[in-house]
Amino acid sequence: MVENFSEWFHDILEEANITDSRYPIKGMAVWMPYGFQIRKYTTNLIKEVYDRDHEEVLFPLLVPETELAKEGLHVKGFEDEVYWVTHGGKTQLNEKLALRPTSETSIYPMYSLWIRSHIDLPLKYYQIVNTFRYETKHTRPLIRVREITTFKEAHTAHASKEEADIQVQEHIENYKEIFDTLGIPYTLTKRPEWDKFPGADYTMAFDAIMPDGKTLQIGTIHNLGQTFAKTFDITFEDKDGEHKLVYQTCAGLSDRVIASAIGIHGDEKGLRLPPEISPKQITIIPILFKKGKEEVLAKCEELKKEFESAGLRVNIDDRDIRPGKKFYDWELKGTPIKLELGPRDLENNKTIAMRRDKLEKIELDLNENLVGNVISLIDELNENLAESAKEFHKDHIKFASDIDEVKELIEAGNVVAVNWCGDTACGQKIEEITGYSVLGIYEELEGKSKKCIISDEDAKYVALIAKTY
Amino acid sequence: MVENFSEWFHDILEEANITDSRYPIKGMAVWMPYGFQIRKYTTNLIKEVYDRDHEEVLFPLLVPETELAKEGLHVKGFEDEVYWVTHGGKTQLNEKLALRPTSETSIYPMYSLWIRSHIDLPLKYYQIVNTFRYETKHTRPLIRVREITTFKEAHTAHASKEEADIQVQEHIENYKEIFDTLGIPYTLTKRPEWDKFPGADYTMAFDAIMPDGKTLQIGTIHNLGQTFAKTFDITFEDKDGEHKLVYQTCAGLSDRVIASAIGIHGDEKGLRLPPEISPKQITIIPILFKKGKEEVLAKCEELKKEFESAGLRVNIDDRDIRPGKKFYDWELKGTPIKLELGPRDLENNKTIAMRRDKLEKIELDLNENLVGNVISLIDELNENLAESAKEFHKDHIKFASDIDEVKELIEAGNVVAVNWCGDTACGQKIEEITGYSVLGIYEELEGKSKKCIISDEDAKYVALIAKTY
Repeated sequence: MVENFSEWFHDILEEANITDSRYPIKGMAVWMPYGFQIRKYTTNLIKEVYDRDHEEVLFPLLVPETELAKEGLHVKGFEDEVYWVTHGGKTQLNEKLALRPTSETSIYPMYSLWIRSHIDLPLKYYQIVNTFRYETKHTRPLIRVREITTFKEAHTAHASKEEADIQVQEHIENYKEIFDTLGIPYTLTKRPEWDKFPGADYTMAFDAIMPDGKTLQIGTIHNLGQTFAKTFDITFEDKDGEHKLVYQTCAGLSDRVIASAIGIHGDEKGLRLPPEISPKQITIIPILFKKGKEEVLAKCEELKKEFESAGLRVNIDDRDIRPGKKFYDWELKGTPIKLELGPRDLENNKTIAMRRDKLEKIELDLNENLVGNVISLIDELNENLAESAKEFHKDHIKFASDIDEVKELIEAGNVVAVNWCGDTACGQKIEEITGYSVLGIYEELEGKSKKCIISDEDAKYVALIAKTY
Repeated sequence: MVENFSEWFHDILEEANITDSRYPIKGMAVWMPYGFQIRKYTTNLIKEVYDRDHEEVLFPLLVPETELAKEGLHVKGFEDEVYWVTHGGKTQLNEKLALRPTSETSIYPMYSLWIRSHIDLPLKYYQIVNTFRYETKHTRPLIRVREITTFKEAHTAHASKEEADIQVQEHIENYKEIFDTLGIPYTLTKRPEWDKFPGADYTMAFDAIMPDGKTLQIGTIHNLGQTFAKTFDITFEDKDGEHKLVYQTCAGLSDRVIASAIGIHGDEKGLRLPPEISPKQITIIPILFKKGKEEVLAKCEELKKEFESAGLRVNIDDRDIRPGKKFYDWELKGTPIKLELGPRDLENNKTIAMRRDKLEKIELDLNENLVGNVISLIDELNENLAESAKEFHKDHIKFASDIDEVKELIEAGNVVAVNWCGDTACGQKIEEITGYSVLGIYEELEGKSKKCIISDEDAKYVALIAKTY
């Protein structure tokens, strides 16, 4: 894990060609070519998971004010951060149009048209879109932005409460799979009442612990109950001929998935990208002298093709610069495996591999299961990244039994677990005294006789307290 | 080609589950699941072409008013149709922000930062984004919209005029490849001075002739010269140490590519999708009776896997409805090949294939090169769609030697070619008299002694005149 995460993160985004923040609007950055590739493979991973049983659709960006305002609780949660379009050309519009801060109010009026009968249910759609928040806090690329460029949001409708509850579990399993693939450890909590999604019955949230001990919310899942169904009149005719309101869920992932993958795995030399989202999984670096140059390059091309037919993404860095500079660059950019090949290696039928996580040199035989051996190295790196991250994660969740300790532990870079009775008053008191946030319920404490950290009541839960991004 | 194209197009979008226009903002529609898949494969095709030598990036949606206003000619071309964001929450913004109508003014200030030296050139980036136009004319899904959901725009910068000219040719070749793959015939013209892209030296445009004889602009390429380089101060240090302005090009494709593929190939029974962008290339329809049901379904699954390993997209329609309804549905949705398989077919080791273009039944042997034979049918269909479209296209470009004939021919559903001296006055007179548009220069007429259709001057060009979408 890197020291001084904030500065490191700022620098790596620029140095590794991920984003450029010099765009003339605060909180809106340009995705640069290398960053765009990371974003692409991350998006592909998420699509793959959702395509299994959701259909992809695309809704317009703009939401009429009347629709946005229909759900009272919901609009209250967003009204301070909505961007408004008021003019088309020089004409003032009859009605203000919001840049979607999230898409419930653009999607659900259409659900009301589409859903007629129980045979239309469950309805499971998702979309990947840009969404907007007029952030007044300090912005930070990928973490706190005014344009979320890649919001992946799923919206489902069901005939019964039970099916909606099961769907929430399925969203959870999907998100676990995505985070596990990227080796991102998480806490899963049920957000406290005062911090749930505006309009939801309850919110489940995934948070990652960043190197500075602050948590980053990387995914949320909301059981919407029938709140929006009532507001937008989403009903269906059931098998029994009765007209009933649907039950709904929604779930969202943002660019923060990438922020956490970058932040959690990176080291002082730069990125250490999980192979799944690394633009290249293997970078071949030819060591070129005048003599034998053609042969070395030809062999590199041959290897590239071999790796590619095994489904790997490979590049050859044949720039006319010192090999040392190339090693430096690809360590910065976090390619999982570098392969070095010079004329003497070629003579001896070998190549030197270097795993980005360990930076040890490993000699591989060119003629002996090279592809298989490199795939093993990639797999080992993948596991090692995940393991190291998990270790850091586990080491940074600490239990506190009194409220002073909570503050101390958080200030020392930890997330803190406490016993909690579950009362909002106690929960908000924790936030008031410590100045930090209750992430939510981490575990149930059924049958164990523990006391709440604030009141004298029996504790029902272990809650997590954290300094959040 | 369909009769009454306008009505047909309106209906097919809804019936084939492509878009839903009931979204509560005029000119902004929802991409439905089937339409989204068509959009995805079309986008993939374009990405594949551009990924060869462009890098993909992503710029923010919003453009500060000061940047948009910098290039005078450019802003004049767009000021009547820009959507403006004026408020964030309840706060009036210090500066109005435009929803990009196109991205020159968001991209080029960054090019000015990125380009330093001749080694940074050529710079070739592209992005796929949503763009916005406050259309006051009658809107129509995919054709005239207020949110273009998938604008694919390439922006290049070069060290010399020659390189920019070559790039224009490369854009043209790329677009030809894309349209050819989809069997979309086009006219390529140089737009007249009064209709070129605001700020460009010149504009090359691709137009398709729709079934009603109106042309649809489906792709444009602009040689920007040094106009924007001057405005945004995009300079580089050349090999000779001198600081010079870059030369630029840009090129764009919108959702209209899909509109033309749908419109040009469709028939009275529905879509006839080019295989490249058809969500499924083969739909297998099992004919099920109680007896032998399991065996038939098992064989269908086996065939599906076989086709899929050959890289084809396949579905099995095992819905519990009459086969006739399934045939109707997939004809409407335009799957290139339907395969029918019942218990007797299975006994006889055969399957009945139907090509969507010809709707003839073809018996195929299950054990004799089935995959190869189906691929041949797909290829033949692809060629036939392209050929039929090309024939219609050629039949609908007519030459007129006097101005009354121009009007008559256009009203009869044609695009009209005329000899033109090239003077703006004459060009605009053609538009004035006929009420139709000069698409632009279609051919040069070097050395041929023809007279301009308006003046007594020698004609330099064949120009095309059309009723446009």
